[in-house]
Amino acid sequence: MAVSFSPILHLPHSLPSLPALKSSRTKISATGSLSSSSSSASQMDLHNQGRQKFIEFPFVSAPHRDLMVNLVSTVEDRLGSHLLPCTLPLDVQHCQNESGSAQASLHIRSGLQSSQVDFILGSWLHCKLPTGGALNITSLSTYLNPSTDAPNFMIELIQSSPTSLVLILDLPPRKDLALSPDYLQTFYESTQLDTHRQMLMKLPEVQPYVSSSLYLRSVLSPTVVLIQIGAEEGGPERTEEIIKNHLHPTAQEVLGIWLDHCACGERLVGEEEKAYMMKRDKLIKKKTIEIDLGTNFPRLFGPELTDRVLGAIQKVYSI
Amino acid sequence: MAVSFSPILHLPHSLPSLPALKSSRTKISATGSLSSSSSSASQMDLHNQGRQKFIEFPFVSAPHRDLMVNLVSTVEDRLGSHLLPCTLPLDVQHCQNESGSAQASLHIRSGLQSSQVDFILGSWLHCKLPTGGALNITSLSTYLNPSTDAPNFMIELIQSSPTSLVLILDLPPRKDLALSPDYLQTFYESTQLDTHRQMLMKLPEVQPYVSSSLYLRSVLSPTVVLIQIGAEEGGPERTEEIIKNHLHPTAQEVLGIWLDHCACGERLVGEEEKAYMMKRDKLIKKKTIEIDLGTNFPRLFGPELTDRVLGAIQKVYSI
Repeated sequence: MAVSFSPILHLPHSLPSLPALKSSRTKISATGSLSSSSSSASQMDLHNQGRQKFIEFPFVSAPHRDLMVNLVSTVEDRLGSHLLPCTLPLDVQHCQNESGSAQASLHIRSGLQSSQVDFILGSWLHCKLPTGGALNITSLSTYLNPSTDAPNFMIELIQSSPTSLVLILDLPPRKDLALSPDYLQTFYESTQLDTHRQMLMKLPEVQPYVSSSLYLRSVLSPTVVLIQIGAEEGGPERTEEIIKNHLHPTAQEVLGIWLDHCACGERLVGEEEKAYMMKRDKLIKKKTIEIDLGTNFPRLFGPELTDRVLGAIQKVYSI
Repeated sequence: MAVSFSPILHLPHSLPSLPALKSSRTKISATGSLSSSSSSASQMDLHNQGRQKFIEFPFVSAPHRDLMVNLVSTVEDRLGSHLLPCTLPLDVQHCQNESGSAQASLHIRSGLQSSQVDFILGSWLHCKLPTGGALNITSLSTYLNPSTDAPNFMIELIQSSPTSLVLILDLPPRKDLALSPDYLQTFYESTQLDTHRQMLMKLPEVQPYVSSSLYLRSVLSPTVVLIQIGAEEGGPERTEEIIKNHLHPTAQEVLGIWLDHCACGERLVGEEEKAYMMKRDKLIKKKTIEIDLGTNFPRLFGPELTDRVLGAIQKVYSI
C-alpha cells in the first residue's frame, strides 16, 4: 500500500500552566466515542476531551506510544505557556468512519500572539487493511511564525505491519538553502544534525525511504531522517526494540535541538526576507494538506468529514 | 578516501561549426605534455589542443570513456553553434603535478551573447592512490544564463577502484522548489525524470550515495541520481557492463530531457525573479568551486597551480 508522506492528520496536547491539565503526562484511558456536538462544551473541556483521546495513541505498540507521548510532553513542558488550548470541534478532534474500520485523532494548538510558535499539530490515524493487518500513522509537527526564520519540526511514524515502519524526522527549513549557507551552518551543520541520520543508517534493518511526492522531497532538509525499517527476521520484538533503543532517543535529540536552537532562539528577520518566507510557509502548508488529505482521507472517511477536517485545518493554517 | 562531491575540475569540447573541428567525434591520441606557454597560440589552436586532451579520457575504462564522449558530442552537436571556443591557458586546460601522480584536464566554453547557455564545463581528474589503485573523476556540467530559469545539467562519475563507482546525475533547479510547484511540475514531474532514478535503484549492485557536503545536497533536485555502485562480486567486467547497459543510456536520456526542455525551451522570467535567480546562480557557483577546489586540489597540485586554475574558473563564472 502506498502511504502518503505526511500525516493525514496531526495532533497535540495539554496546557501544563493550567491546573486542569497538570496530569498531562498521566496516561488516560479511552472514553469511548465522542459526541459530535460541542456547542455546550467550554473551550477547556473541548481541549481536554480531545487531548485525552489523542495522547492515548490506542492502536500502536508500547514503545511507539512512549515515543510519541514523550515528544508531546516535552513540547508541552517547554512551550505550554506559549500555546492556546485546542479549540477544534470534537468531531474533528476525533473521527471515525461508519464501519469503524478507520479512526483518526487531530489536535492543534495555536501559539499566543506574543510567542514565536505559530501552532503545533499532532495526529494519529488507524485503519484496518484488507489483508487483516492495520495501518497506523502518528505525527507531531510544530510550526513557527514569521517573527523568526528558524526551521520547523516534524516527526511521522508510518507503521504498515508489525515489522515494517517508515520514519520521517526533520527540521524542515524555512528558507531556500541554496541561497542561505549561513542558515545551513547555524541550524544543520553546527548542530551536527546529520550524525543522527548517520547513526540510524548503520542499523542492518534500516534502508533509505523515498517519498513518491517530489514536492514533499523538495521541502525537507538535507539532514532529514527518511528511513524504512524492515525487521521481518527479528519480528515485532525487534521492531519495538529499534523504536525504543534507536528511534526514540534520536527523535528526542532532534526535538531537543529544535527546542533549543529554533523555538527558543532569537533571530532577526528583514522585511523582504519575511515577505518571501510568509509566502513560502503558506504555500508549503497548502500543498502539504493537499497531499495529505487529498489521497487517503476521502477514501477512508468520505467527502463530508474530509471537508469538515480540511476546513478546520485551513482555519488554523490561515490559508 | 573521501571524494569531493563535484568535479574537482570540469571540461568540454569542440566547435563542430568550424571546419577545424569536424573531427570532434574522432578519438584523438594523447599528444604528451602540453607547453605552459600559450601566448603564441591562436584561440582556435588553444581550443583544439585542450579539447584533444580532454576528450581522450585516457585513464578510464572504455565504457566509461564512451559514456563521457557521447555526452560531450551530443552537447556539441546540439549547442555547438551557441558556444565560443575554450580560451583557457593550456596549462590550465591540462595540468599535472611534479611527480606525475596526478593529472587533470579542464575545458570550458562560454555561450554566445545571443544564446541561453552561460557556459559548459567538462573535466577529468586522475590521481594514483597510495593503495596502488587510482581515483578517476570525469564530469560534464552545463549552465544556462538568466534569460531562462530552466535547470542546469550535471553528471559526474567518481571511480575509486575498478569495482566501485559513484554517479551523480541531475538537473539542478535554479529556483526554490518549495515555492515553485509549477516549475517542479514542468521540469521534473511531466518529464518523468524520477523513473530513471527508480530504474537504476533496482540493480542489486546499486546503493544510494550521500554527499558529505550539506550544501551540495541542498542544491540538487529531488530526482537526482546519486548512487554508489559496488560490484565486488561481479568484478570490473560487471562494473563496465553496468556503465554500458545502464548508466550510459540513463545519462543520455537525462541529457536529452535537458536539451529538449531546458536548453532549447523558452521561458519568461520576470525582473524580480531574475534578480533572485542571478544571486542564487552566483552563490551556487562560488560555493561549488570552494567545495571542489578547496579540498583535494591543493593537496594534489600545490597552491600555485590551484590559484591559477581557480582564477581561470572564476573569470568564466564571473564571480
